[in-house]
Amino acid sequence: YKITILPGDGIGQEVTREGKKVLEKIAAKFGHTFEFDEATIGHAAIEATGNPLPDESLAKMKASDAILFGAVGHPKYDNDPTAKVRPEQGLLRMRKELGLYANLRPIKLFDELLEASSIKPEVLRGSDILFFRELTGDVYFGERGRKDNGDTAYDTMIYSRYEVERIAHKAFKAAMTRKKKVMSVDKSNVLESSRLWKEVVNEVAKQYPEVTLEHQFIDAAAMLLIKNPKAFDVVLTGNLFGDILTDEASQIAGSMGMLASASVGDTVGLYEPIHGSAHDITGKGVANPLASILSAALLLDISFGMKEEADTVIKAVEQTLKAGFRTRDIADANTPAANILNTETMG
Amino acid sequence: YKITILPGDGIGQEVTREGKKVLEKIAAKFGHTFEFDEATIGHAAIEATGNPLPDESLAKMKASDAILFGAVGHPKYDNDPTAKVRPEQGLLRMRKELGLYANLRPIKLFDELLEASSIKPEVLRGSDILFFRELTGDVYFGERGRKDNGDTAYDTMIYSRYEVERIAHKAFKAAMTRKKKVMSVDKSNVLESSRLWKEVVNEVAKQYPEVTLEHQFIDAAAMLLIKNPKAFDVVLTGNLFGDILTDEASQIAGSMGMLASASVGDTVGLYEPIHGSAHDITGKGVANPLASILSAALLLDISFGMKEEADTVIKAVEQTLKAGFRTRDIADANTPAANILNTETMG
Ligand SMILES: CC(C)[C@H](C(=O)O)[C@@H](O)C(=O)O
Ligand SMILES: CC(C)[C@H](C(=O)O)[C@@H](O)C(=O)O
Repeated sequence: YKITILPGDGIGQEVTREGKKVLEKIAAKFGHTFEFDEATIGHAAIEATGNPLPDESLAKMKASDAILFGAVGHPKYDNDPTAKVRPEQGLLRMRKELGLYANLRPIKLFDELLEASSIKPEVLRGSDILFFRELTGDVYFGERGRKDNGDTAYDTMIYSRYEVERIAHKAFKAAMTRKKKVMSVDKSNVLESSRLWKEVVNEVAKQYPEVTLEHQFIDAAAMLLIKNPKAFDVVLTGNLFGDILTDEASQIAGSMGMLASASVGDTVGLYEPIHGSAHDITGKGVANPLASILSAALLLDISFGMKEEADTVIKAVEQTLKAGFRTRDIADANTPAANILNTETMG
Repeated sequence: YKITILPGDGIGQEVTREGKKVLEKIAAKFGHTFEFDEATIGHAAIEATGNPLPDESLAKMKASDAILFGAVGHPKYDNDPTAKVRPEQGLLRMRKELGLYANLRPIKLFDELLEASSIKPEVLRGSDILFFRELTGDVYFGERGRKDNGDTAYDTMIYSRYEVERIAHKAFKAAMTRKKKVMSVDKSNVLESSRLWKEVVNEVAKQYPEVTLEHQFIDAAAMLLIKNPKAFDVVLTGNLFGDILTDEASQIAGSMGMLASASVGDTVGLYEPIHGSAHDITGKGVANPLASILSAALLLDISFGMKEEADTVIKAVEQTLKAGFRTRDIADANTPAANILNTETMG
């Protein structure tokens, strides 16, 4: 199996290193051969080549069986709204070129972290959500630009029937293996693209008569997610609303540093933490590597069909948490200082 | 003073009745003369005239000094993504025609409700946020439609410099009377309209050198709001991101049923709960009237400059909560059944 390691920017570099170590350990333990290759993207790639997604990187990814990705982004561009070349362009082009239209974001709370969240434990206990975020359409990929000498700026939120259909099928199929419930999130009381979204989801639902379909507006969903996360099971959203809701949902798992994601579609699968490049903590060794390690578990499971191997990784994460080890983001008053990990000094 | 009462749909009818009663009480107590007139909007107006915002309603509003509004919406349209005439069109046209470009949404937690939220009391204590949501631009008002025989649908997210400037000034001015902090929320790592937003906010900020400006991406903001609400003070957002964030923020105040809002701009001010028409609980007398009553307080304060009168309303709300009275949405295990209010039977 060929795996492309794509660290990207900021803590992406740090956490992907840990994710790779875990893949190496699994290969040794189970007698697999994983061939690793590294590629650049984002700010790192702009610095090296001027291009946020060099052709060479894309070629490597296309030639591999799975990709373990970190994050992209850099404050330099964030502080310059007029920059023409940006790290995120590399990410978006990669998603599009690799046909990664379905972004799966499981929100699972480890028992040990029940107290790490700002939400009450009794509200959280038992939460288990699987987001299907559409990843290659919506306002991320519609036409955008300026008018009136630059004084007016626009972006186009856009969806076509086939784009909604294929992600909806993925969500309903997953629902059949879970609680047979799908919540579709849109803003169809205002947006035409949401009305198409809802129409198509309703049609697809007919092919899954056992699944109960519920619709929520994005504003109500953002509220309900915090009020009663247990009411959520499979959630089906567009690209923008999914971006917002899944970041918000990270509080259900205690920290953004815990959440893995899988992006799948036409060809090779890509696995990445949902957190970003977090330059404020880069280089300090305090980044939580678990999102990348759990992304490696998703990679083993989804791209290679290695269930036992994936479970081994998840169990190891559980045991580490049970043993009381924490990174800063999930530490609490009861965590002894000696148990607060520093990935730089850990080796 | 002329006040238009605009109940709209669903529980809008029920809560606005209570808001009006409070205005009448204040008039009597302080010796003011408020002249009330009622107008229709939304589903109620469609049923009566076929038009979600009849000209007559708009004329009444324009001729008044302030408007107390309920909510619009009806499941009939929500379940029919192809409906051409919709209640929300009335709301959007009203906002545009009245030039209500600034929607102020204060998120204030009454001490008595510290336990009513799904968020931990120690995380909430001391939270006090004022949202400035832009209300007459963005994807709510850009061109929308269908292409490819209806198989593709689009909406246009669009902002012009002057639209960002005027709402930004309102937010910075408010910040000067508070903690001198503004958080501007956008998605400028992807969206051109957000990049313009950020550019203009940075420019306006130069005129308020005492105010500290922070930028957050909408996904990060949706997460931080739950993780650490106390880090928020004045928040400046576009129309769509503001819609999502303020509904989410309702959990900070314990319930959506507690949150009032003021929409102001060129002419007459409009005051409304941030909750919707909530047809699931309509007619049961269980709707929380406090959002409408607190909207009446905002009306007295902002449109009529009646600070003492507004404070009297807020104190009355506090006392009612202190006395242990609750509607269902904010009741907890300690609320005796006799203290759970039913506005239908209360008189
Ligand atoms: C970096 C950014 C463009 C990206 C997105 O919005 O998709 C990120 O937030 C994510 O969720 O993967
Ligand atoms: C009813 C709907 C169109 C409206 C909006 O999205 O603006 C509502 O959610 C609000 O926040 O006032």
